[in-house]
Amino acid sequence: MNWREAAENIPEIDKLAAEKMRMHLDTLTKPQGSLGRLEELAVMLAGMQGTVQTDKPAVLVFAGDHGVTAEGVSLYGSEVTALMAQNFVAGKAAVNVLARQIGADVYVYNVGIDATDTAAINRNVRRGTGNIAKEPAMTTAEVKQALQIGADAVEVSKADIIIPGDMGIGNTTASSALLCAYKGLSPEAAAGSGTGVEGQQLKHKIEVIGRAVKRSDAKEPLHILADLGGLEIAAMTGAMIRAASMRKPVLVDGFIATVAAIAAAKLAPGAERFFLYGHKSAEAGHAAALEAAGGEPLLDLGMRLGEGTGAAAAYPLLKMAQALTEEMATFADIGLA
Amino acid sequence: MNWREAAENIPEIDKLAAEKMRMHLDTLTKPQGSLGRLEELAVMLAGMQGTVQTDKPAVLVFAGDHGVTAEGVSLYGSEVTALMAQNFVAGKAAVNVLARQIGADVYVYNVGIDATDTAAINRNVRRGTGNIAKEPAMTTAEVKQALQIGADAVEVSKADIIIPGDMGIGNTTASSALLCAYKGLSPEAAAGSGTGVEGQQLKHKIEVIGRAVKRSDAKEPLHILADLGGLEIAAMTGAMIRAASMRKPVLVDGFIATVAAIAAAKLAPGAERFFLYGHKSAEAGHAAALEAAGGEPLLDLGMRLGEGTGAAAAYPLLKMAQALTEEMATFADIGLA
Repeated sequence: MNWREAAENIPEIDKLAAEKMRMHLDTLTKPQGSLGRLEELAVMLAGMQGTVQTDKPAVLVFAGDHGVTAEGVSLYGSEVTALMAQNFVAGKAAVNVLARQIGADVYVYNVGIDATDTAAINRNVRRGTGNIAKEPAMTTAEVKQALQIGADAVEVSKADIIIPGDMGIGNTTASSALLCAYKGLSPEAAAGSGTGVEGQQLKHKIEVIGRAVKRSDAKEPLHILADLGGLEIAAMTGAMIRAASMRKPVLVDGFIATVAAIAAAKLAPGAERFFLYGHKSAEAGHAAALEAAGGEPLLDLGMRLGEGTGAAAAYPLLKMAQALTEEMATFADIGLA
Repeated sequence: MNWREAAENIPEIDKLAAEKMRMHLDTLTKPQGSLGRLEELAVMLAGMQGTVQTDKPAVLVFAGDHGVTAEGVSLYGSEVTALMAQNFVAGKAAVNVLARQIGADVYVYNVGIDATDTAAINRNVRRGTGNIAKEPAMTTAEVKQALQIGADAVEVSKADIIIPGDMGIGNTTASSALLCAYKGLSPEAAAGSGTGVEGQQLKHKIEVIGRAVKRSDAKEPLHILADLGGLEIAAMTGAMIRAASMRKPVLVDGFIATVAAIAAAKLAPGAERFFLYGHKSAEAGHAAALEAAGGEPLLDLGMRLGEGTGAAAAYPLLKMAQALTEEMATFADIGLA
């Protein structure tokens, strides 16, 4: 399905299914509400899916490069994006390890890596974005292409739970710029250390973000995403929109993914109803991004790697929530009124 | 091994193994420290175990009744303890569901249920404790028996990771009293709603805890545990001590388990080196108990069920930590300096 059509067809939450789940939970052998957010998760999943189904998670990693790395905003060079994409395909990056632990398939998409050849699924739109400090990241046609790649990836995965992941040296800079543009934050509030920049380098990064935001005159959500975003960020956005249209819960990872979720909600109002937030990242801008997105993270473990790792770490809680609703005895079962 | 002998033989942390793990983590394909507490967990487990080993977790549920329920401190009557023990044995309580999710064996011990017969492993020391508001919970001989049951349970389980769980109507009252006696807290700070008491009933519970603490003149850690504790709390304490002596990490659950951990550290100084804290419970006294124990919980999900559920929910993070240390590529592997 075209991503735009998906964006215009976001379903409502099934309130009846959610309410039935809440009533069911209150019959189980435990003090009411004593499983805390595991109960809330069950109710939310029921509302999203009708019938809670968490058995088939998939991690969709989108990789793309960023022209803004020319400004010296990252500890690593752009060549690391391609090397890490290979690492994902080889199954040896952090997100692969966590995906194996949770039984998730991993799909690695090259949407914008600046290299001639990578082992990833080749959907390269262009070899890296423009340098957003000086020029648009991409054209409107390119951002639409990236959105569609993300949307298609959800369909291909046939998964119940969608975990979009990112790889792209420079992408915290682009995400911070998007956060400023979408939510009116200052570059100081939206920026963080990314791969690990500190002190003077972080100040420089904030200044670069400021320049990008100032340069851009984009007003429409799609235009903002094209002007300041990234190819992998747009693909994640497209995946989130398509997932929401199919009533598939999206388990949102950290800073980059949360910004993609904000973009998705702008492009497809209501999509946010299908988003769960895996964790609070140590990346400084994530707290502001979560607040802007209205996200309540499940974990807070000081992670700041991206790739989908924080969401993958949180996934077992979804599976536990489902199992609790299906396998626990009721008070009636054990002979208590 | 006798619990007392175990208590006198708590090993040191293997600092060399911890340091080697930290260095290893810094070679892996991720920005340094970007896996946050998953990296810290790997370092801590290495320090405890030498070689990280999380594959075989076990949940040891100890069940016992509390004479103090006569004071009306719980929403449920004592008969629920036996019914829930049956529910555990049938595999249909919350902790059974979560244990299946994490591949943990569950052992259910009747250490003090007030019923003639239960399907649990029968190690009944006595049918419920004395009413601590008026009399000692148990004798010194009885508390030692309970400690030994817990210690033996660890050996029987042959597990790598020990998750002690509790069941006992009235046991938040006993745990609050212990917390007051061990750490000098006020009954107001140490008490919480337990099964769900609120308002006037909670005030009454606080008053009952105050009476128990005032009555007791116990000074020695063991005497305090006997005077104000519970049979299942003492068994958990014994399990924690024995686990520590065997370098087995203990994944501590919520309020009751944290109080048992405090008792274990009093009886066996150094045992706390082997304790990890699974979650922050919604039970009001748990924040104070965690602070007193120096525990940094992994999860904060508003759970307050006990049974070991909060620790079981956190366990996947330990397994992920191990897998990350074993399966990730290094920067050298992918051709980066």
